[in-house]
Amino acid sequence: MRNILITIAYDGRNYHGWQIQKNSLSVQEVFQKNIEKILGHKVDLKGCSRTDSGVHANMYCISLKTNHQIPCQNLIRALNSYLPFDIAAKNCINVPDDFHARYSCKAKEYIYKIYNHPVRDPFLNGLVYHYWYKLDAPSLNDAAQCFVGKHDFTSFCTIDQRDRRNMQRTVKYFNVTKQDNIVTFKVCADGFLYNMVRIMIGTLLRVAQGKFLPEDIPNIINAKDRGKAGPTAQACGLYLNKVFY
Amino acid sequence: MRNILITIAYDGRNYHGWQIQKNSLSVQEVFQKNIEKILGHKVDLKGCSRTDSGVHANMYCISLKTNHQIPCQNLIRALNSYLPFDIAAKNCINVPDDFHARYSCKAKEYIYKIYNHPVRDPFLNGLVYHYWYKLDAPSLNDAAQCFVGKHDFTSFCTIDQRDRRNMQRTVKYFNVTKQDNIVTFKVCADGFLYNMVRIMIGTLLRVAQGKFLPEDIPNIINAKDRGKAGPTAQACGLYLNKVFY
Repeated sequence: MRNILITIAYDGRNYHGWQIQKNSLSVQEVFQKNIEKILGHKVDLKGCSRTDSGVHANMYCISLKTNHQIPCQNLIRALNSYLPFDIAAKNCINVPDDFHARYSCKAKEYIYKIYNHPVRDPFLNGLVYHYWYKLDAPSLNDAAQCFVGKHDFTSFCTIDQRDRRNMQRTVKYFNVTKQDNIVTFKVCADGFLYNMVRIMIGTLLRVAQGKFLPEDIPNIINAKDRGKAGPTAQACGLYLNKVFY
Repeated sequence: MRNILITIAYDGRNYHGWQIQKNSLSVQEVFQKNIEKILGHKVDLKGCSRTDSGVHANMYCISLKTNHQIPCQNLIRALNSYLPFDIAAKNCINVPDDFHARYSCKAKEYIYKIYNHPVRDPFLNGLVYHYWYKLDAPSLNDAAQCFVGKHDFTSFCTIDQRDRRNMQRTVKYFNVTKQDNIVTFKVCADGFLYNMVRIMIGTLLRVAQGKFLPEDIPNIINAKDRGKAGPTAQACGLYLNKVFY
C-alpha cells in the first residue's frame, strides 16, 4: 500500500469549498470522482483543511492510500486530463505511511487579495475583494504586526467556543504589500481557527476606515469575544497559498 | 448635441465579440441597452473596432452623440452600476463634433498572452492560450521584428482578398517578453486586417516549433497568400490593449 501526497490548485468560484456536501458541488467531490476513475477503486482522501465556499487555493494538499502502481508523473497527467479546467494537479510524491495531509501539517500560509480602485477590474470578479477607498499598505502592515505571535484567537473565530478547544494559535508573519492596484495580505500560522483570516482582514479594514485604532487590536485579542472584532471579509479574496510539512 | 468618448474594458469570455449579432450576446448589445436606460434615448454607438468572439479588451473606445447633460464622471458611475461585472466603464470625455471612435483612430496596440507551462493555471481559463512546450521569448522577439514596417499583409488576413481593399499596414513595434510563465506579445500598427494578430502569432509559434525559420517570414509576407502563413492562434489570448487618437 502506497501513501501519496498530491498538490492541486483550484479556482473556488464554482465550488462550495473543499469538503463534500449534500446538494452543492465541492472540490473534493470532483477530485474524488476523477481519481477513483483513474485508480479503479474507492479512495479515502485526506485534505489539508476545509476551505469555505468561494475560497481559492494556489496550493492544496491531499494524501491518500492506494495499491495502484501508476508513477506519480503519470497520475498528474491523468488527473489534468480528467479534472475540469478550474482544478489543476500540480505535483505528486510518495510519502511515508504515517503521513497525513491534515495532521502532518506544520503551518499554512494564506493570502488575501483586495482590488483597490474606484472602478472594478472586469477580469477579477470573484478572484479579489473589490474595495473602493484608497488603502495605505504600510499602515495596514504596521497594524497587522499586532497579530504576530502566540495568542488566543477566540475573538477571531466564528464558531461557538463552548466546546473549549484550544483557541491558541501562533501567527509567524503577517505582511501587507501593494502592487499596482492589488493589496495583498500574506499571513502564516501554525493553524487557523474557523474564519480567522477573514476576520483579521475585516478588522484591519476597520483600522483603515478609522473605526478602530491599531492599538485596539491587542485589546480585541484579549477580550476573547467575537463581537469585539471587525466583520468577516468576503471569501472571494482568500487563497490557501502554501502548506508546510 | 455633445459628442462623447467612453473607454471600457471587458472580459470577452461571455460575449461573441463587440458587434451586435442575431442569436448571440455581444458587448455592444449589453452596453447599448444599459447606456440607453441611463440617457433615456436611442444611441448610435461608434466602436473603435470589431473584436472576435472570446477576445478581450483592456481598452475599448466608443463614441456617441447625446443631448443629455449628465457630467462625464456621473455617466461612468451610472454605467458601472448598470453594466455586468465583466464590463467596466473606465473613462469618459467630451470630444469635438467630428470625432469618430473608429475613423479618428491613428493606431492600436494588441497584446496576446500565452501561459507557457506543462500544467494549466486554473485561474486563467479563457484568458490566455495554454501552450505546453517551452517558448524562448528572445528568439520569438527576434522573429517578430520581420513584421515591423510597412507591408502588404494579405498572407495574414482571413477574408477573401478579391475586394482589392488596401492590404498595406504599418507595424510600429512588435515585442515579445516573458515573465513568470506568461509570454506576452505586444504589437502596435496603424491598423490590422481581419485576424492579422492571431495569424502572426500562429506563424511565430510555427517558428518556435522549428516548422518555419525566422527568415521564412519575409517570404510569407511577399507571397500575399494566406495559405503560406501559420494557423490562426486561439482568440482567448488576445486583448485590445490601447487605442491611439
